[in-house]
Amino acid sequence: MIIVLQKEASETELQDIVARIKHYGLEPHVIVGVARTVIGLVGDKNGLEPSFFEGLPGVEKAVPIMAPYKLTSRDAKAEDSIIQIKNVTIGDGKMVYMAGPCAIESREQILETAEQVKIAGASILRGGAFKPRTSPYSFQGLGERGLEYLQEAGETFGMPTVSEVINPSDVELVARYVDILQIGARNMQNFSLLRQVGHSRKPVLLKRGLSATIEEWLMAAEYILSEGNYQVILCERGIRTFETATRNTLDVGAIALARRLSHLPVIADPSHATGRSELVTPAGCAAVAAGAQGLMVEVHPNPDTALSDGAQSLTPRQFGQMIKAVQRVAGALTLSSTDEWWERNVV
Amino acid sequence: MIIVLQKEASETELQDIVARIKHYGLEPHVIVGVARTVIGLVGDKNGLEPSFFEGLPGVEKAVPIMAPYKLTSRDAKAEDSIIQIKNVTIGDGKMVYMAGPCAIESREQILETAEQVKIAGASILRGGAFKPRTSPYSFQGLGERGLEYLQEAGETFGMPTVSEVINPSDVELVARYVDILQIGARNMQNFSLLRQVGHSRKPVLLKRGLSATIEEWLMAAEYILSEGNYQVILCERGIRTFETATRNTLDVGAIALARRLSHLPVIADPSHATGRSELVTPAGCAAVAAGAQGLMVEVHPNPDTALSDGAQSLTPRQFGQMIKAVQRVAGALTLSSTDEWWERNVV
Amino acid sequence: MIIVLQKEASETELQDIVARIKHYGLEPHVIVGVARTVIGLVGDKNGLEPSFFEGLPGVEKAVPIMAPYKLTSRDAKAEDSIIQIKNVTIGDGKMVYMAGPCAIESREQILETAEQVKIAGASILRGGAFKPRTSPYSFQGLGERGLEYLQEAGETFGMPTVSEVINPSDVELVARYVDILQIGARNMQNFSLLRQVGHSRKPVLLKRGLSATIEEWLMAAEYILSEGNYQVILCERGIRTFETATRNTLDVGAIALARRLSHLPVIADPSHATGRSELVTPAGCAAVAAGAQGLMVEVHPNPDTALSDGAQSLTPRQFGQMIKAVQRVAGALTLSSTDEWWERNVV
Amino acid sequence: MIIVLQKEASETELQDIVARIKHYGLEPHVIVGVARTVIGLVGDKNGLEPSFFEGLPGVEKAVPIMAPYKLTSRDAKAEDSIIQIKNVTIGDGKMVYMAGPCAIESREQILETAEQVKIAGASILRGGAFKPRTSPYSFQGLGERGLEYLQEAGETFGMPTVSEVINPSDVELVARYVDILQIGARNMQNFSLLRQVGHSRKPVLLKRGLSATIEEWLMAAEYILSEGNYQVILCERGIRTFETATRNTLDVGAIALARRLSHLPVIADPSHATGRSELVTPAGCAAVAAGAQGLMVEVHPNPDTALSDGAQSLTPRQFGQMIKAVQRVAGALTLSSTDEWWERNVV
Repeated sequence: MIIVLQKEASETELQDIVARIKHYGLEPHVIVGVARTVIGLVGDKNGLEPSFFEGLPGVEKAVPIMAPYKLTSRDAKAEDSIIQIKNVTIGDGKMVYMAGPCAIESREQILETAEQVKIAGASILRGGAFKPRTSPYSFQGLGERGLEYLQEAGETFGMPTVSEVINPSDVELVARYVDILQIGARNMQNFSLLRQVGHSRKPVLLKRGLSATIEEWLMAAEYILSEGNYQVILCERGIRTFETATRNTLDVGAIALARRLSHLPVIADPSHATGRSELVTPAGCAAVAAGAQGLMVEVHPNPDTALSDGAQSLTPRQFGQMIKAVQRVAGALTLSSTDEWWERNVV
Repeated sequence: MIIVLQKEASETELQDIVARIKHYGLEPHVIVGVARTVIGLVGDKNGLEPSFFEGLPGVEKAVPIMAPYKLTSRDAKAEDSIIQIKNVTIGDGKMVYMAGPCAIESREQILETAEQVKIAGASILRGGAFKPRTSPYSFQGLGERGLEYLQEAGETFGMPTVSEVINPSDVELVARYVDILQIGARNMQNFSLLRQVGHSRKPVLLKRGLSATIEEWLMAAEYILSEGNYQVILCERGIRTFETATRNTLDVGAIALARRLSHLPVIADPSHATGRSELVTPAGCAAVAAGAQGLMVEVHPNPDTALSDGAQSLTPRQFGQMIKAVQRVAGALTLSSTDEWWERNVV
Repeated sequence: MIIVLQKEASETELQDIVARIKHYGLEPHVIVGVARTVIGLVGDKNGLEPSFFEGLPGVEKAVPIMAPYKLTSRDAKAEDSIIQIKNVTIGDGKMVYMAGPCAIESREQILETAEQVKIAGASILRGGAFKPRTSPYSFQGLGERGLEYLQEAGETFGMPTVSEVINPSDVELVARYVDILQIGARNMQNFSLLRQVGHSRKPVLLKRGLSATIEEWLMAAEYILSEGNYQVILCERGIRTFETATRNTLDVGAIALARRLSHLPVIADPSHATGRSELVTPAGCAAVAAGAQGLMVEVHPNPDTALSDGAQSLTPRQFGQMIKAVQRVAGALTLSSTDEWWERNVV
Repeated sequence: MIIVLQKEASETELQDIVARIKHYGLEPHVIVGVARTVIGLVGDKNGLEPSFFEGLPGVEKAVPIMAPYKLTSRDAKAEDSIIQIKNVTIGDGKMVYMAGPCAIESREQILETAEQVKIAGASILRGGAFKPRTSPYSFQGLGERGLEYLQEAGETFGMPTVSEVINPSDVELVARYVDILQIGARNMQNFSLLRQVGHSRKPVLLKRGLSATIEEWLMAAEYILSEGNYQVILCERGIRTFETATRNTLDVGAIALARRLSHLPVIADPSHATGRSELVTPAGCAAVAAGAQGLMVEVHPNPDTALSDGAQSLTPRQFGQMIKAVQRVAGALTLSSTDEWWERNVV
């Protein structure tokens, strides 16, 4: 950390700050500049925050130099993490497709969708049973009954399943039925929930929050890893910006950067990122071109009768066509991944 | 709701859409324009969403006309809601000040702070026992022990208390100790938590999310009201924007607009909104000038040793001076509140 | 346009609004709803704005239904526009690469760069002579002398050139030396400049503004087209968001959507979008996967001595490797562009 | 500036960086930390940018410590700048009100408005003759004829005038007619225009750009000051955020901070900041409470027939009522400005 003193900071204030730095077991390096004096801190700064110094008399600001995440970082683990879920592997270079309806509406609907997305090329079945909805008057999901249907559909068609958990007290329940626990964007900083899924032995799909920085996203993953659960899949799903023509703004730079900063697998959700079915394929291709190792896509047999998010759902047929396009992009990059640039840029 | 058809929509598609509208018990009004055909929907659209139509063949988009919140709206209740908490009234025209440390650190600290903020003019004591922290390695709060200290401090100095609850399963526990349940910005769309505090009989302080629109904020309040708890206090605490010189951007327009759209009391948190102690007073004055009915401020006896958010904490003395300035602004507006503009603009 | 009346609007107010609508030569359709009355407008609304109605007594808001751009729209011209610049074609399905230094620093530098980017695969040479810099103390470019060097380098290596113009009075001067006039992001709504390049017969590269919506971007293009210059190339270069880990956020959804809404060619600038050389290739691949028809990239023979933007510049060798990767992605999509999805999604 | 090395930076890379720092005439201070090595730079860093180092082998990032503006800063001039325009003083503690229509529509309209805003309490007359409009099909202003009407109205009612200039070549023309040259938000980084008004001897009103940081805003002012024109008035007019319920988001923290960082007077434009006439008064009060030394407000005798921005215009009567409210707030703060907090917080 670097501490920048105020222009008018006194010698006494400087000495007090130096004393405090030593009190924390760190070594202060004072640099007297032309316009400002700054102090560099040397030592193990784990748990120390800029705010510990920013309140002190004479301090203008404190600037952290190191990233605050540890276990999530490539510094902690240089090679890519690979996550095995039944017969499916995530992060090993082969694209993984998670597909299904936004909300599970009935046994028939999820069985029908499962069959169709399986044929189209999906390897993991998604479906929401506990839905976080902006309005209390919107359909909130079928709850445990929905999970039963999802489990049945997954087993019938040989696909691992993923579903969102929104309440810490439901983690055990959801974990009984599904193979991957999903943390939604609105819960990315629901720290009780993060800790709870950290205690679970099930892999976790962690969506980036609507206005979460890449650092905050990795820190949210750190919560889960620090509880002992290392099976975390990061999912970029678009951030909130001033642009309203698309539902969110897919941040492909975040995909590329997260892969560089962290060893965890990174996938993308082009359905929520764009909110428009006609943009799902271009956005999915873009995410993969930027380094995403999989996609999560909303697919509904009849998007026009869907109980939620119909406008952004693909039909199974459209989904199959999307996979064809994405596979070509992924193939193109696999070819180029042996080149130096990939080595330099992503790994 | 208004449904806009695609330029090339066919007569059959139009008829299908019209049939569906009637199926929902609504009356369609078709307007054939020069460039587009639009359909206006008449009837009770409760629970109907644009996405029900946006997936249909021939539909370009569906535009909602009415706000989706009901109980929270001035349409439901024209006059200001007033909330009584022990000896303190919120929303009756008199400013209310909530103050205390970001985190409760010890019995002594909260007792000392309580005494000092009481003298300075605060009527409600705040203090965090369960802290939502970005890093799992940061101080997470004292938990139930912190709540005990807070309760003791509140009773000793005759102040109702407010503290954050971050886990639905803790609502009962926290409600046993405090007078107001706080929902933090990061949990504004933690719908399980919102429902749980909706079942409580304790007043709820609902902070606006970092990237929540005013409509989403009022919808979050709607979750609580729809469970039967009408005692909700809205709290604007700054939104996340591109500007990094301040921690967040205090949205005074949202304060003025929320007071116009909703009957619920609105307060502001200038500490989190700015993140810099020297900006707390100007921001607090601005919030009140825009219509805020109270302020929540971080006060710490020794900001430079605070375990969290020291940089934005005021000393009790600074807090007292802030209140003097804010009271003058509030007084100026009370004088002018009898004028026509106030009537037109805020109520 | 749809006009929504206030809940309490009177019959007289309604009649006044109806009269005004007729005065503008339009036909009003009044729909009396359960909660609100709305009026649909039928007729040629060219030049009519929501603000013409939003000030009227009884009006809550006016909602435009149609996009405000005309000439730029696919409605005006269904097929892709193709722009011919000397021996280079933009928008015909073949990727175009524009490359060169952020700023022209010397004759040697631009000649050396031109030779190297040509070998690497670029077909258009870029270089800034008039630099819009945040600080008045930063290097501002070589001016006309820089343009001379650029012209010489372009002619020597058989490449058309592109350079930014920042002052309406310089348009003629710059047009004498370069083949494409660039409008920078900070000038996207410099309407005097837009009109001036609209009078020119040179193609225009129009960068999207840092906080411009897609609609505003297309409206800026409309300024140029409405002056008679139809040769406009749109360039997405990242938008400003809350994220600070990358310089800007590349908006791939905007690329896909602009291609759908407009017939103009769309390219991307992954250098400014990310601000980090190691992210230029992944971002460039992503842009092309989303539908970009070309890339503009900063290349400098010695990025570490560059007078501006060294951190985001590629070396010629890195640039050549980027092209290899991007070409594979482009090839993958050409293969799939005959599929139905491309037809549906992009064209 | 602080340079942070990559974890794996070699000793040779370190020596190369050190050599370069010395080459720039600066003194390097190397601090070897547990996880990273950083180098502090001592000496006059004027004109040196982080990008000079960020491209170098072994460098992770370069962090500037000092603000890049000089003449604009309180460091350069501690006391408030006061600007005298005919009989009106800006920045001396007395509030100044600039009012008038968004666009000058006719001689009668501006004369009528001038008379009415004068009576209501305005001291400066505003009116647009060259209008920067998003659409080329919208009313673009009366041009020079509008300036003649504005000048006549200003002289008739003894009010200095302010009007926007959007083209560098028009600066002389506009300066012949008006007393204050306005730079609009969309032109805040039109550096040719900034330099041109820097050469003028007329005071300049500099609006903050829609997505400009406070630092960029002060750097834009620095362009004008560095050309020798020290009479710059900063104007906060709302920034672009994700919130769409208001036209922009008034950033009161920026007002308070700009007053602290710079000696230049700061005013606010609550009309553009909110875009809704009913929010202009609360926002104006808030801006003044945060430290604004004046307000610029759109007033139109008949907002419902205005050719632009009618929805956000006040009637002269509403404007007079706004002034009454704002004056009370300003008075309250003048009382408290002798207190210590103001001294600490603003000056």
